[in-house]
This record gives sequence, C-alpha cells and structure tokens, in this order.
Amino acid sequence: MAVGTIPFPTMPALEGVRLGTTMAGIKQAGRRDLVVIELPESATVAGVFTRNAFCAAPVQVAKAHLAECRAQQQAPRYWLINTGNANAGTGAQGLEDARESCRTLAREAGVPACAVLPFSTGVIGEPLPTQALLAGIAPAFAARDSQSAAWEQAAAGILTTDTRSKGASVEVPVGDRRITINGFAKGSGMIRPDMATMLGFVVTDAAVEPALLERLLRDAVNHSFNCITVDSDTSTNDACLLAATGRGAQVSSEADIRALADGLEQVLVALAQAVIRDGEGATKFVTLEVTHATTRQEALDVAFTVAHSPLVKTALYASDANWGRILAAVGRAPVADFDVDRVVIDLGEVRLVESGGRAPGYTEAAGSAVMAREEITIRIDLGRGDDSARVWTSDLSHDYVSINADYRS
Amino acid sequence: MAVGTIPFPTMPALEGVRLGTTMAGIKQAGRRDLVVIELPESATVAGVFTRNAFCAAPVQVAKAHLAECRAQQQAPRYWLINTGNANAGTGAQGLEDARESCRTLAREAGVPACAVLPFSTGVIGEPLPTQALLAGIAPAFAARDSQSAAWEQAAAGILTTDTRSKGASVEVPVGDRRITINGFAKGSGMIRPDMATMLGFVVTDAAVEPALLERLLRDAVNHSFNCITVDSDTSTNDACLLAATGRGAQVSSEADIRALADGLEQVLVALAQAVIRDGEGATKFVTLEVTHATTRQEALDVAFTVAHSPLVKTALYASDANWGRILAAVGRAPVADFDVDRVVIDLGEVRLVESGGRAPGYTEAAGSAVMAREEITIRIDLGRGDDSARVWTSDLSHDYVSINADYRS
Repeated sequence: MAVGTIPFPTMPALEGVRLGTTMAGIKQAGRRDLVVIELPESATVAGVFTRNAFCAAPVQVAKAHLAECRAQQQAPRYWLINTGNANAGTGAQGLEDARESCRTLAREAGVPACAVLPFSTGVIGEPLPTQALLAGIAPAFAARDSQSAAWEQAAAGILTTDTRSKGASVEVPVGDRRITINGFAKGSGMIRPDMATMLGFVVTDAAVEPALLERLLRDAVNHSFNCITVDSDTSTNDACLLAATGRGAQVSSEADIRALADGLEQVLVALAQAVIRDGEGATKFVTLEVTHATTRQEALDVAFTVAHSPLVKTALYASDANWGRILAAVGRAPVADFDVDRVVIDLGEVRLVESGGRAPGYTEAAGSAVMAREEITIRIDLGRGDDSARVWTSDLSHDYVSINADYRS
Repeated sequence: MAVGTIPFPTMPALEGVRLGTTMAGIKQAGRRDLVVIELPESATVAGVFTRNAFCAAPVQVAKAHLAECRAQQQAPRYWLINTGNANAGTGAQGLEDARESCRTLAREAGVPACAVLPFSTGVIGEPLPTQALLAGIAPAFAARDSQSAAWEQAAAGILTTDTRSKGASVEVPVGDRRITINGFAKGSGMIRPDMATMLGFVVTDAAVEPALLERLLRDAVNHSFNCITVDSDTSTNDACLLAATGRGAQVSSEADIRALADGLEQVLVALAQAVIRDGEGATKFVTLEVTHATTRQEALDVAFTVAHSPLVKTALYASDANWGRILAAVGRAPVADFDVDRVVIDLGEVRLVESGGRAPGYTEAAGSAVMAREEITIRIDLGRGDDSARVWTSDLSHDYVSINADYRS
C-alpha cells in the first residue's frame, strides 16, 4: 500500500553525471539491484550518515573514503549502491567485502579506490553475496548514461520493500543563471533517520565549496529526512549524499546560498515525504505540527512521541477519532514542568483538546470526518515558547505486520 | 491471544479486608465493572501513580485524598475502581465526577470523602457515565465479602481488553509468624508503566509504617511494573496501591523488611509478567536481559529500545530469527561512546552476535529453534560496566492491530 500517487519526475541530464544499473542477482532475478553513479572530476561531495552504533560496513568505508578524498583533494567520482543486502552486522569480512567492491569499480574506471563510495541496503546480518556483486560492476559501469531514463532506473535499482521509486527535481535561479537539483531516495521500513534517510542521492550542477556543501546538506536533512518516522527504527545503513558537479553556476553570495538552500530543502522534503507516503503498510500520510515549544528539540520530542505511538498509529489506520490516545501520547512526552492546561490540539480544522480536556465544540462527527481522510494534520500547540517543528509519519496497519512478519526483509 | 495459561490463585482472606463488585452497566451489560475494596482502620496505604502529564482525574483525586488522609492521620478506607471509562482528558467535569463518586461511597460507608481513593480505566476522553457509576456504588458496597471468590471477582471487575484475570498471592515468614500478600492487576494495552502499571492493588496483613510501605512499594514497582512494555504507550491512569492492614505481624527489623520486600517483589513481578503474557495480541513472552552496562538506566535504555522496536516485535511474532533487527535496535539505543565490538547478544542458549557481527558458530537452524518457542530470552552483554536490568515484553501481531483498530478501546 501507499498513500496517493506521485509520478517519478523527468530528471534533466546534468553534465558529467552518468548513471548505470544492472541486474546482478543480489536481490532477486530480473530486478535492478546494482547502481553506479559517476560524477565529474570537478565535483564536490558531502554526506551525512546514520548514528546507529552498529553502523554498516559500507557506511564506514564511505566515510573513510570521503575523508581520504578530502585529504588528497581528490574528487569522489563514483557512488556504488546495491540493494538486497545491507552488509551490516557482518564484522571484519563485511568491511573487506565493501572495500573489495570499491577496488573492483576503481580498476574498471581507472581511479583510486578511495574515489568510490559504497552503499548497501537490504537484509541485515547476512554476508554480502560478493561474487554476484563484483560480477555486476562491469555491466553496471558499461550501462552509464546521463538521460532521464538512467536516473529513473537508478532510483528503481536501490529500492527494497518500497513499492515505488522516489525522485524530485527542481530548478532554482542563481544570479542570472539557473541550477538544477536532482535527487532520489529509497526507504519504507526501519525509518527513523538520525542524520539521513535509508539512502538518498542528490546531485546539483552548481559549483559549491565542500564546507558550504556539507552545511547546506546538514541543514536540509535536519528539516526533511530527520523529521520523518515510519516505525521508530533507525537503520544501520542510513546515508544521504549530495554532489555539486561544479559545471554550472558558482554559488557563493548570500542570496545564491539561500536560493540553493531553499531548492535543496524542497527536493529533500519531497523525497522524505515520498518515503512516508510509501511507508510499510501506509494508508495515511500524517503531518504533526508542534508549535509554541520552548526549544525545537522539545517540539520534535513531542511530535515524535505522538508519531511513534502504536495506539495513535492504529487509530489513524482505523480512521477512528480516538483523540484520547493523542492526548495520552502528548502527556508522556519528555517535557519538563508540562502544564497540560495550556495545550491545544487540533485535528485538521477541528479543535480536539483545550483546558486539559475535550474542546467544548468538539463532535465525534467532525473528528471522524477528518480522520477519514488520507492526509491528516495534527497540530499541537504547547503554549509555552516560540519554537516549533514538523514531523511526517504513517499509520500502523495489518499490512505493516504482514510485510515485516510474513517474510524476511 | 495470550501466552501460556495461569490459573487465578486462591487468595486467603485477610482480616478486615472485604471486596464487593457489581455490574453497573458502565462497560457493557452483564460485565462486572465496579469494585469496592474495604480496608480496616488500622491500615497504612502507599501508592505510585502515572507520570503522564495528562494524568487522569481519578489519579489526581486519589493522590490528593491520600495526602489528606496522611495529614489527618486518617486511614484510606476504600478503593473504588471502575472499568469501561478512564475519566481522563475530561477537564474540570472529570475531577468533579471523581470527587462525587468518592462522596457517594463515603456517605454509604460513613467515612470522610478523603478516605475513598478512586481509580478508573477504559476509554480516554469520554465523559464518565456518572449516573450508572453512582447507582452501582450501593450494590457494590453491599456485596462486600472477604472470601477468595470476592478477590477473584474484584480482579475480574477491573479488566478492560485483558483476556483473563491476573492475581498473585504469597506467604512469607516474619519472625515466628507468617504474613500474606495478595495482589491483582489489570493491563493489556497502553502498557509502558512509568511508576506503576495500569492498575494494581496489593494488600498484606502485615503492620508497616507508611514511609517504609512507600519505599517498599516504590522499590518493588521499579523491578516489576516499571520493567514491562507492550506498546511503549504510558497510560494516563497508571496506579499501583499497596495496603498493609496492620492486623498481622509488625514488620520493623531489617530481616523482616527484607522478607516483606522479597515477597512483595515476587507478587508484583508475577502480576507484571501476567500483564505481558496477556499483552494485546501477544503470542510470545519475551525477557530482555542487559548485563555489564555502566548504569542500571543504561541497561534499561538498551532493553526498552529493543523491546519497543516494531521490527524486532514483528520478527518475534513471525518466529523469524532475523537477528539483524535486534542488532540494529541495540545500535540505536542512547548509549554514549558505544563500542559495538564488545557487545555479545544471545538468543536463548544460542550466541547471535560478537565482535561486531554474527557469531562464528551461529546457524539459522539454531536461531529458528529458539524463535519458535513461546517464551524467549534475549541477553545483551554490553561489556562495559557492572550494572544490569531485565525487561519483559510481548510481540507485535496482527491481533494487536485488530484489537486497536477494529474497535475503540
């Protein structure tokens, strides 16, 4: 299941960027599962990665290679992504397997091994099927292409339990020129990103200094991928990469930086929302807006407490205006000296809670009408400060249990 | 569903303690839903209550009455419990309704209103059906009885989505005499107690000073009800009450205190485990043991992170030895400077994880054999300190979603 329909956008070609995919037989026969993304020598690259302590082998290697490239002023030239196996919880052998895959692509492309950043997604704890993966690298490399279809195939080639590809593309003005930002992502379950989503790959043709690129990525991720949750489980393999090819306009003035930041946030929010719309078993797309908090962290804490509540999520699935469950979840959020009499909760345009109890004008019919919708906004006004946050989540359905209990993912 | 079978124990009568129940029509016709528990004038009483900021009206009144009794050196003489409605999120009217129910029972019994402590459980946010409740008080009061059957009826009269009554009784030696501890509890969903379970009522015939009774209850709750979770949702109505009737042996020596503390923990652990075995949709009873943590809190944090993970819970439901999900959950626990290479994870007697990856001797067959069981222990050795904790939880099944989505609870 998935909420709404979002066609994959037409991605403009970006000079110097080519994407190749193949069916390497890692995930299952007849399924694109290996992707090579080529960046030009002029590119700068930034990345944010999972904070899970059991961080997967490819994440460790990608971080190390990124640092090595930076030290050697070498551009990371290739992103190598496989689905079907996360290469996580695989110990020393997993690290060696990830490095070996980088070396194989590096030989094929004639670049140093550190110029290849590896990414894996899929089942955790099983050895990487190295033979199939290594054998797929040459065909994927040979298939490189810059056209829109190549972007779409790459976006399809990184999916796991996702039911559809997730892409976004915007153009923003920079001075008297325009730059393009293309991005795609995957993710459906084990989604409670902490620094990034499961996997997100974003490329712009702008020219951006590495330190600025890093800051822009971090800010945009904090307002997009770090504001979503399907099931509260942070993955071992989260990574979001941003490359600036340097072939387009230089971004350096404050106005240009703001334009790029806005465009980047637009792409990342679109991808993050697409992950939620395709959340495992999702039948609802839910926005939680928490306002008048003391700090943004406090607002996020309240929003995520509600977003993670299995009782709120099953009520959303049932289209049941059981607002007592929302109130109970807000009440258990980690907020110091919480005066609940000041809390106001709205479901869509319907006021649910004020003065510590049900709002006087509330009717079950009005609440149920909002709950019946596929897209629902819950607003929680804490009445105690000036900070706010917005979080997106999905519901908890029978299909979520089926997807995660009926077969191994 | 529920895990295993536990017959309700035969509860010995305790001098001065009488329990009355009736079918007041609050929950549904033909169902015991109102309970009066009478304590002797010699009783001391301690209580622990939910930390949910949206604390229900009866919890607020019970706390106030308990304090009032203490200030006036008056024994709390009655616990008045209804199921079918939680009287939570009901604002000023809810408080007035709770107080009115206390006054009604107080008039019937000829005691001050503060001697009545009210408790409610059931749906949150709907007005208390006061008329039915008040009308039921006289019949429940008249039905008071001290025999074992009265205990069993009272335990049945507080249930909500529970599929069975939960009771425990032990006898412990105090000096050359023996004291009895009888307890019963309810709870099945919205179970992540923070100071207590949904509702637990425990009575001993020992004579115990109020301050000591309070400390004993708090300690026992911290190792029982505060160590369980079904769905991570802390209720607005959690309360656990302990009365010492004072009719039996005086507990004051260190040895006697230890004996009472052990007996009390035994009763509360049995009740807490019974809640988990009857967790909404539960098909598995799971023990999480975290050892060699820096602090007990750190051990609890890791245990609860795993216990709350929907992906671990659905794997348990599926009897799928998907240990990568356990590893991923451990890895996202809030532990500072986490060296995962020192972590050892065992599933029953089978080693899953060591040195950052799958244990060398592990086989899927061995893991699956443990997962197929109805009772499963997961041991997580953090290898970094001397503290430990144990947490009990259930799995996440289709029935959990049905119970919480198919009708309003």
